Amino acid sequence: MKTVGILGGGQLARMLVLAGAPLGLRFKVLDPAADACAGQVAPLTVGEYADEGTLARFIDGVDVATFDFENVPAQAADWLAARVPVFPPPQALAVAQDRLSEKNLFRDLGIPVAPFADVDSEAALQDAVMKIGIPCILKTRRLGYDGKGQFRIRATEDIGAAWAALGPQAATTGLILEGHVAFQCELSVIAVRGRDGAFHAWPLARNWHDEGVLSASLAPAPVDAALHAVALDHARRLAEALDYVGVLALELFCRDGELLANEMAPRVHNSGHWTIEGSQTSQFENHLRAVLGMPLGDTGALGVSCMLNWLGELPDPVPLMREAGGHWHDYGKSPRPGRKVGHASVRVNSHEALVAALQRVGVALGRQAQVAPVIASLA
Amino acid sequence: MKTVGILGGGQLARMLVLAGAPLGLRFKVLDPAADACAGQVAPLTVGEYADEGTLARFIDGVDVATFDFENVPAQAADWLAARVPVFPPPQALAVAQDRLSEKNLFRDLGIPVAPFADVDSEAALQDAVMKIGIPCILKTRRLGYDGKGQFRIRATEDIGAAWAALGPQAATTGLILEGHVAFQCELSVIAVRGRDGAFHAWPLARNWHDEGVLSASLAPAPVDAALHAVALDHARRLAEALDYVGVLALELFCRDGELLANEMAPRVHNSGHWTIEGSQTSQFENHLRAVLGMPLGDTGALGVSCMLNWLGELPDPVPLMREAGGHWHDYGKSPRPGRKVGHASVRVNSHEALVAALQRVGVALGRQAQVAPVIASLA
Repeated sequence: MKTVGILGGGQLARMLVLAGAPLGLRFKVLDPAADACAGQVAPLTVGEYADEGTLARFIDGVDVATFDFENVPAQAADWLAARVPVFPPPQALAVAQDRLSEKNLFRDLGIPVAPFADVDSEAALQDAVMKIGIPCILKTRRLGYDGKGQFRIRATEDIGAAWAALGPQAATTGLILEGHVAFQCELSVIAVRGRDGAFHAWPLARNWHDEGVLSASLAPAPVDAALHAVALDHARRLAEALDYVGVLALELFCRDGELLANEMAPRVHNSGHWTIEGSQTSQFENHLRAVLGMPLGDTGALGVSCMLNWLGELPDPVPLMREAGGHWHDYGKSPRPGRKVGHASVRVNSHEALVAALQRVGVALGRQAQVAPVIASLA
Repeated sequence: MKTVGILGGGQLARMLVLAGAPLGLRFKVLDPAADACAGQVAPLTVGEYADEGTLARFIDGVDVATFDFENVPAQAADWLAARVPVFPPPQALAVAQDRLSEKNLFRDLGIPVAPFADVDSEAALQDAVMKIGIPCILKTRRLGYDGKGQFRIRATEDIGAAWAALGPQAATTGLILEGHVAFQCELSVIAVRGRDGAFHAWPLARNWHDEGVLSASLAPAPVDAALHAVALDHARRLAEALDYVGVLALELFCRDGELLANEMAPRVHNSGHWTIEGSQTSQFENHLRAVLGMPLGDTGALGVSCMLNWLGELPDPVPLMREAGGHWHDYGKSPRPGRKVGHASVRVNSHEALVAALQRVGVALGRQAQVAPVIASLA
């Protein structure tokens, strides 16, 4: 019986544990917070990732380590990797932690990206804005997620404010300026690569964000087969370049039939939660199969799915549970503004049934705004 | 956040816990064994069901109690029911614990059963054999399961041996003689009834046993719609008569197009494990939805499924995991002859794909005998 150690004890770790128990796996979870929600389903080690004493307690009895969180300090990942197998490999984590390294890798692999530039001073920001054009977005290179650490520049007058907001971080997290992409839609590839190099990807998801945070995903995304193939090829080249093992997410913008890579996540991903009910093997199970060297499961879709994120607090579960295809996921967290506290999936056999279900759920929960773009995309 | 207490900490409790975590439920499990496998996924109270001190520790913080095991002493169920809501209701448990009460109820509800007779002495056994005919089976009324506590009478010469084997139990568990049914197949209905009386049933499963223990299930069972409707109607009347809440299993023999009730189980059931991947809502999730008064989930099948039980020890998981529709369930138990240590499900979209997968798995694991009857039934 193998024990998997997970760095980070949020909902991703929680869903990994629930997917891994039927495989006969045991888990240990490490998180700085004593109330980390994965601690409800697996033994929790509480402490800082950077503390070697904590890491030593955590890996006692662990056969393989993985992550629910990519912003683990690189030296912690390296310390672990010197002692137990760690997947995905720490170098993949390092690339994904730094938007500049990530964009450089995309470009080197021939994966199209929006124009970008390293920014280390207000003068460099001025130059970069001139070169890239307006609108554009100043972002921290490290430690940004869900729209945090970003400042949108809509006019030259915004440059000063952008520097005032993020400039102090130039010396710590670093900064990058990215051109704004006037995309028609956002897509993501969730893919998995095994220890033996086997590569599988789930059908693309189309995603909608609200203030930088994922709001809804539709899968399989109704896009043409050629675009689908290009997206999967991008993910495959990325996974191979990183000698990746485990589940990997690649977020893409679609603009006039062209795909531009936005960012990667070296872990199971919010836009892959639909795979729990909506595919033959979930992203959580396949991540575990990959890191343990087991055969990967089939990634085919079962019908069509829509995932709705619950932020801040959970709505009433009853309207969703009344739907024939409704599945509820409460992460066991206390409410907090903007916090990801749960999600729901609706898995049915046709777009018509999906639209009807989303309309009913949207009305019953007063969340028409959340379901409207998904419904509109299927009209 | 509700806490569900489960009496019995085996694989059924374990799978209830895994199904309930996404619903935001917490669990406590009570079992006499300190290594009960549900204790790997939920807090375990170790102690005897009949001990009030143990029960009091167990129900501390529990909002509703249920069972993974029907042979909990009636007074323990009653003690609990006086303090917390208990579902299914203890009277349903009492009926299911006693083969004679169960058969009488079937008969009273117009559900056909094989002939049966109460046996309290060797003379009564002689009379019953004359009345019911040979072959027949002497069984304990209580505490029998998986073929235990049974003696098959193939000739009048066997009566003495049957009495020698089970007679001593006439005064404790009681005995019942049942006519042998020369059935063509064994079927089971898994059904669920809500607190509000809502009733749903999954498609019938066809089951194969090996030495009295379930070996394989095929679902949906390829039987005609009329037979299907009759089976579901039997289950519905049974659930209503018992004012049942939760998942209920009804095992049936099919003989010349007629259904005869064999026995019921007042809990989630081994022949319903296929519902985890093979239906929209699993028996485990719906049992929890029912006992908590939530809306019941859809019980429709997703494709076709075959469940294979692993007894004694787990086979190599790799051949099963290589199948596109293969799903593995390791219960986290140590090996022991005859013990249910895990199961696998194969969920695909056609009988042809199922036969091909079972043939490959059977050969790879040297378990052709286990898959052969399932394959033959689809030929």
